[in-house]
This record gives sequence, C-alpha cells and structure tokens, in this order.
Amino acid sequence: MKLVSFQHAGQATYGVVQGDRYLQPPADFLNRFPDLASVLCADALGELKKAVAANGTAIQPSATQALPVIPNPGKLICVGLNYKTHVAETKRADSEYPSLFLRFNDTLAANEDVVLRPSFSERFDWEGELAFVIGKGGRHIPKAQAFEHIAGYACFNDISVRDWQRHTHQFTPGKNFPGTGPFGPYLLTRDEVPDVTQLALETRVNGNVMQKATLGDLIFDIPVLVEYISRFTPLSPGDVIATGTPGGVGDRRDPPLYMKDGDVVEVEITGLGVLRNRIGVEA
Amino acid sequence: MKLVSFQHAGQATYGVVQGDRYLQPPADFLNRFPDLASVLCADALGELKKAVAANGTAIQPSATQALPVIPNPGKLICVGLNYKTHVAETKRADSEYPSLFLRFNDTLAANEDVVLRPSFSERFDWEGELAFVIGKGGRHIPKAQAFEHIAGYACFNDISVRDWQRHTHQFTPGKNFPGTGPFGPYLLTRDEVPDVTQLALETRVNGNVMQKATLGDLIFDIPVLVEYISRFTPLSPGDVIATGTPGGVGDRRDPPLYMKDGDVVEVEITGLGVLRNRIGVEA
Repeated sequence: MKLVSFQHAGQATYGVVQGDRYLQPPADFLNRFPDLASVLCADALGELKKAVAANGTAIQPSATQALPVIPNPGKLICVGLNYKTHVAETKRADSEYPSLFLRFNDTLAANEDVVLRPSFSERFDWEGELAFVIGKGGRHIPKAQAFEHIAGYACFNDISVRDWQRHTHQFTPGKNFPGTGPFGPYLLTRDEVPDVTQLALETRVNGNVMQKATLGDLIFDIPVLVEYISRFTPLSPGDVIATGTPGGVGDRRDPPLYMKDGDVVEVEITGLGVLRNRIGVEA
Repeated sequence: MKLVSFQHAGQATYGVVQGDRYLQPPADFLNRFPDLASVLCADALGELKKAVAANGTAIQPSATQALPVIPNPGKLICVGLNYKTHVAETKRADSEYPSLFLRFNDTLAANEDVVLRPSFSERFDWEGELAFVIGKGGRHIPKAQAFEHIAGYACFNDISVRDWQRHTHQFTPGKNFPGTGPFGPYLLTRDEVPDVTQLALETRVNGNVMQKATLGDLIFDIPVLVEYISRFTPLSPGDVIATGTPGGVGDRRDPPLYMKDGDVVEVEITGLGVLRNRIGVEA
C-alpha cells in the first residue's frame, strides 16, 4: 500500500493511493484511528486495507493539500554521515557508531510545499534521504528482528542551514528551521519492498542530478540503526528515522552551490515516488 | 506561585503549592485547561490563581505521585557548555554560539523518581541545571523582551550516559535514555524571581557538594538563549529550555566519579527547592 496524509475539506486525514485517486477510509474507521500514526499504533494496516476496499471514499488528489506522511511522529531521529561518499566530502573521520541528531515535528513539510530559506542565511542545502517509519514499537530490538518493526519507507529531504549547523559541534540549529524537512509523497508499506538495499536514491535541483546512491551504500544499515537507537530510546509506532544523505551536498562542492529562491529540489527513490519542493525565502 | 504537576486518584493533574498542601483548581477549570502547558498556552496563570483561591481543593502531597513540572513540553532544548568552569574541565574551546541538543519527552522524570542507569554503562553522571519554561510564544524574540516570554523556573538534572554521549560528536544518545531528566519539584513563576542571575545552584550526591555556581555565571545568559533559539525555531508556551551545567561533573574528576545504585542526587537552586532522585539500575 501507498499511504498518504492530507488535508481535505478542512480536516487532516489520510488514505491509500489507488491509481490516480486517494481512497479515504470510512467515518467509523477514521473515528477509531484519526491519523496514520494511530493506525500503526493499533497494528491496523490490514484492517485499513479492508476498510478502504469495502467502503473507501474516492478523493481527487487535486482537491487535497498534502501533509508530511506522518505529520506528528513521537520521535523524529536523523542519522548524519552514513554514506562513505558524504563522510569523505566532509573530511570527517570514520566512526564506530552512527551520528544522530533530532528534529522537531514543526520542521516537517509535505510534498510540493514551498520550503523557506531563512532570510539571514544563503547556505541552504539539500540532503536527499530514505526515511523509515516504525510500525511495531520496542526497546533493545535485535538487528535480526529490525525489519519486523518497520511499517514502511518514504523519501525525506533533510534540508540544512549550513552556517547554523556549524555554529558549534552540535547540529541542532541548522537542522531545525521550520518546514525544512519534506517527507513524502507517500509511505510505501514494507511488504512492497522486498530488499531495501536495492533502492536507488537521486537528488535533483532544477533537474540536475546532485546526489546518486543506492541504499546498499549505507555505512550503518537499517538493522544496525534500529538496534543501536532502540538501545537508548524506546521506539513506538509512527516514529521516524531518516537514514542519512550520500555525497554530493551543495556545501562541499567547489565552488559551493546552494538553493535559491525559485529552485526546485527533488528526491526520488525507487518505488517511493518523487518528493518535490520549491524554495522560497522567509519574509 | 509554585506550580506542580502530579498524579492524583489515577489522573494526571496539577495545582498550586500552598504551605504544605497542593490546591487543585476546580473541575470546570481543569476541563478547560487539562494540564499546566494548556494554562500557559491560554495565558491563564492569573485565572488559575483566582480559581484556586476561590474554589481550590486541598490535596495532601503524600496522596500524590509527582510528575515532571511540565510533563509534555512541545520542545525540550538543552544547552551544553554554558559555564566557564564546565567548558574548562571538558578542555573544549570557547564558542561564539550556544551549543544545543534536544531531549525526548520520555527522558523527563519527576522529583523523587528513581532514575535508572542502563545496565550496560557505568558512566552515569549528574548535571544540575536551571530550566525555564516559555509562557508566551514567539519567533525572533529580541533579548530585551526575553523575560516577558518566560513563565517560570525549575531545577533540572540533565543526567548523562557519558560513553554514549561521546560515541560520536553528536550528544543525542547519551542524553536520551528514558527517565534521565528529573525536572522539578515545582515551577516558580517569574514574578517571584526578581533577578535570576542571583540564584545559586548546587548539586549534591549523597550530601556531598559536587557543583556550585550562580546563574550569573552563565556564558550565554537567558536573554541571549531566548533570542538565539527563537531565531531558528518558534517557541511556544510550555516549551522548556535547560540552561546548562557548571563545572564539577563526575566524568571530568580525577579519578572520575559516577552515580551508583542507591546514590541520592540533589539539585538545589535558591527559591526553586530541592530536586531529589535516587539512582537505580535498569533491569
């Protein structure tokens, strides 16, 4: 299933993509599960599939306003420096452990949202990534069971304000400007991804390819990330983990290249669609 | 006012400390404002004062179970390296900007909670701090108006798992073990703190003084923190900012000293009471 969150008729809701339409679950289902995270918490993806097949309401995507795939994750965890090509361009040493930072939920954006660069920084940079969403919670999840805890996958763009990211050794400020984390266009459930390491990722700016990798290039693969992260923090359904970006970011180019007003940035991953955003400037 | 959050009769609720009792607001007030953060969001501290004075229900603290002062902040932001004595002991260079990291809400603990060290690390360390709570939201808040945005102050203990904090340059894992952020015992409203720089902070382990400073020693003072943080992220009522810890942490002692099973750690700040927690070990 391809799952989407969106606004329709003034309400935040969700549905299943079917061809060129969205199928919204019926009212009784929406009453029980008001958002996608609550469906995941109840382990009700199978029920959702049946409910939309039996009584779904077809909605034209053009009549909706996209939301981030999971608008309000309990935890939004990002991995830094997780491709050799990116570690090399940052000139950092290899690490035995994944480097992790956190984003606030208000940093999330939807597919096709305009992403605003702050007026006081020109160093606005892309970071195409694969994100996965937790479907079954847990603590101390062993690598071998990691995939059982994953609901699905989506494109993520960890857009970064580079000067603010490097004000100190902690990345927090440059990764937490509002609306700088596009997440979508849809969540592809895990059953439709037989081998995540085969997925190819590409980031384009105005159609020019800036980053290209496959998920098999991850230094810390998804099972290792789930095991490591769940050792220090309990994971819950709806939590989101963005797996890091490959080489090719703008800030490490010679000369550096940043996103400007009107640029269009796209993150595309095999089977996960294209996450497309236009850049604007904060007033 | 001294504000407390607590469990009573199976319900999460809150009240005002009066002498040796808590005064819980009446049911109609609790229906409108189910927790302290919602009181702050509605700018209703004055109304709370009147409501408990007119119709408060007296509750014996012994009949309650404490909760973190704000159990579910929208944002929980921590400042690292904000006292010269601590920067010096870590042997880090001075920085032009505050170093910031984030905690999940499930890392919060209440006064008198047992704080669990993970079984796989011995390097369990104290960090006594002053935390402040946002009362009026905003973005791009100028220093000169910072205090108008503060609801009040409380003790915070940013308990850290040092090896996990230093797995990489990002502090996230070592700062996010569940229940390692005691926050309380109460929030003292800003009107009762004429000059926060005069407050004295002391951290004790089993009665021995480990850290001693005054809030006037902060490198980045509260107005600077509010201005800097609100430049990259909007602040909302109920958000919590922990201002950093002074020198004297256990990990930088020679020999290092860590908290063991049964130890009692206390953070005391002038007028803000004593935040006391016993250390246990995670099963």
